[in-house]
Amino acid sequence: MTSFFRSRWVPKPDHVEELPGGLPRGFRAAGIAAGVKADGAKDLGIVVSDAPETVSAARFTRSGVLAAPVIVSRDRSEVGGLRAVIANSGNANAATGAQGVDDAVAMQAGAAAALELDPMRVAVGSTGVIGVPLPLDRILGGVEVLRGELRADGDGDFADAIRTTDKHAKRASLLVRLPSGEVRLSAQCKGAGMIQPNFATMLCFVQTDAQLEGETADLLLGVTVKRSFDRISVDGQLSTNDTVVLMANGASGVKVEPMSEDELRLGEALDALLRQLALLIAADGEGAKRIGRVVVTGGDQGEVEAVARSVANSPLVKSALHGGDPNWGRIAQAVGGALLDAAPLPFDIAIEGVQVLSAGEGLRFDQRALDAAVQGDEVEYVVVLPGDGAETEVFFSDLSHEYVTINAEYTT
Amino acid sequence: MTSFFRSRWVPKPDHVEELPGGLPRGFRAAGIAAGVKADGAKDLGIVVSDAPETVSAARFTRSGVLAAPVIVSRDRSEVGGLRAVIANSGNANAATGAQGVDDAVAMQAGAAAALELDPMRVAVGSTGVIGVPLPLDRILGGVEVLRGELRADGDGDFADAIRTTDKHAKRASLLVRLPSGEVRLSAQCKGAGMIQPNFATMLCFVQTDAQLEGETADLLLGVTVKRSFDRISVDGQLSTNDTVVLMANGASGVKVEPMSEDELRLGEALDALLRQLALLIAADGEGAKRIGRVVVTGGDQGEVEAVARSVANSPLVKSALHGGDPNWGRIAQAVGGALLDAAPLPFDIAIEGVQVLSAGEGLRFDQRALDAAVQGDEVEYVVVLPGDGAETEVFFSDLSHEYVTINAEYTT
Repeated sequence: MTSFFRSRWVPKPDHVEELPGGLPRGFRAAGIAAGVKADGAKDLGIVVSDAPETVSAARFTRSGVLAAPVIVSRDRSEVGGLRAVIANSGNANAATGAQGVDDAVAMQAGAAAALELDPMRVAVGSTGVIGVPLPLDRILGGVEVLRGELRADGDGDFADAIRTTDKHAKRASLLVRLPSGEVRLSAQCKGAGMIQPNFATMLCFVQTDAQLEGETADLLLGVTVKRSFDRISVDGQLSTNDTVVLMANGASGVKVEPMSEDELRLGEALDALLRQLALLIAADGEGAKRIGRVVVTGGDQGEVEAVARSVANSPLVKSALHGGDPNWGRIAQAVGGALLDAAPLPFDIAIEGVQVLSAGEGLRFDQRALDAAVQGDEVEYVVVLPGDGAETEVFFSDLSHEYVTINAEYTT
Repeated sequence: MTSFFRSRWVPKPDHVEELPGGLPRGFRAAGIAAGVKADGAKDLGIVVSDAPETVSAARFTRSGVLAAPVIVSRDRSEVGGLRAVIANSGNANAATGAQGVDDAVAMQAGAAAALELDPMRVAVGSTGVIGVPLPLDRILGGVEVLRGELRADGDGDFADAIRTTDKHAKRASLLVRLPSGEVRLSAQCKGAGMIQPNFATMLCFVQTDAQLEGETADLLLGVTVKRSFDRISVDGQLSTNDTVVLMANGASGVKVEPMSEDELRLGEALDALLRQLALLIAADGEGAKRIGRVVVTGGDQGEVEAVARSVANSPLVKSALHGGDPNWGRIAQAVGGALLDAAPLPFDIAIEGVQVLSAGEGLRFDQRALDAAVQGDEVEYVVVLPGDGAETEVFFSDLSHEYVTINAEYTT
């Protein structure tokens, strides 16, 4: 079996072991076809923690246009004390106005009733077509079915139920050896590298049976999301529906104290998990051949961030990545475009370890060796700006013919 | 003959008449093949004004990575008193370090010697491959040839000499009827809608025989560039070489006083000229089928600018434009992505006059009529943000298969 940790950029921590599947103790999940998707594929799922003392943390899209499920989960649930998540694919319930919010509230309430929970302890996630009313009857009918399907190994079905155009499932079950004992960590994620028409969301649901304080859960999720889903760019487009939820139910009996070695090790495992999932999002998608990583150092934080995003979102850089073309002039152009009026700018560029630009001036290098080096699945670019101190990275997809085909097709 | 003013977004001013070609009185130009381009096409040109009293104005790219010709023209020429421009295609003289600056200075000096001018009165422009030393010998040899070729109707050859991957020539010669008399206005421009590998520049050279003060030339050019070349987005990529130069030699004897009706009318003509040229850049390019115009009103200036750029640069929006898909969900998503943390955002969207979103909620509309409306060469999107006061527009290219093909091909 291929390791889940397949990228050279995300080494598997030594204290982490991959499991074939299944949820941590005390969690159950299910996923079914409720009829939201026209093709009869799975489209509705629930993950629930049986322990009343479950704590949680969540992060949501910062888009100025929020889908109804994000509004409801953020503003009408107890984000620190979630015990369940209900999520559907096939319909994003976005740009659906007041009716959309009512529908998301009804979805939350329906799941809560079926699970005998306070609605405040249920989050809602949706992904799919924008601007079409949610088929609430089908959702609520599906909830009744889901109640009877919940199982400790239902994570696979749940992961399938949140897929839209994802070509590959994105989930993992990990055993994490902490100094105080073993805990389990699992996650189910969706997001296609090349975003499809009207399907433009990443959802990620994470479970652990470690015993955490709410603040620890929030801290760990915040730090690791910043290093994973916040560092990928498929096409520079921010979804109206992005949602990440971590639930920790303490069922392992292993208590993870703040500032402890346990916390550090759990954080490392969560970090690796989310980073690899983020890379899977960048790599998945119609026609995506390669992913790039741009590392930018020097300057200040605002500068490295602007440069990294400019390189990662440049259609010229993305096209070159797709074509296996080590075209450093495009990197230089993207750097300049991010730093207006900053000339003269004596900066360096290296591609796959080969320095091609030094202090703004092109170097002689072994063109054939560099040509060969950019044919792999992953290509790394390093940009060194004048000054020191700041550093960042962004992972990005290439730009393929299929992206244009898919997104130019008439679909409404 | 097709009118130069072919866009519904740029009506021809009534006091402007199109001429088949030729420069205003007192200007001469030429363009030849000097051997910079491998394929033997024209690649070196000069435009010169014979009048010592010529005034000028210029605008340059704001990229943090400036090509040598931009550095030399901006810092080592008398930007307000230019009498000539020398420009080449096939080599951008960018990322070429100190040698590149020396080469651009030599190119300036060579043209100045041939034209018997002070080098300070000669600007330099280059476009083409990045990071390759300029073939200075060929340039200087070409200058000798050019000296004997300068003609009042040499604008066509000059325009050809600055083309790289432009499929269509972009130039115009206009007769402008001012209250105080007739003047002529001409321009030669290059820039391909879909930027080619390593070729990523717009150059525009404008001439008039009106008699202007230097400040008037600068004012008119500044205002009209802001409304033309600053308002187009091909792929969100800023070149290292963008250059616009206006020269006015007074040979018509028609004096254009500041704040006069003459100035207003000349400004209108220049505005129409540069806007149509900018649209030609957006429309030109491999596979480009349509251009879009997004108009954003409401909010404040920062908001409308961010939203317009986000829509214009969205690969999802561009793909939909290419495919003739009136996919308003993508416009909504691009608006939200530009205005972080701004929810709730009750905004409106109209496509080709059909309102599809009102206060953030999708409307029912005649889908077939809208489908038909987005099949033309030009598609207009209007976004109305909450509040009032600000307004802006951006013109943009679609995203085509050919863009990916061209930019994924290995070319170095």
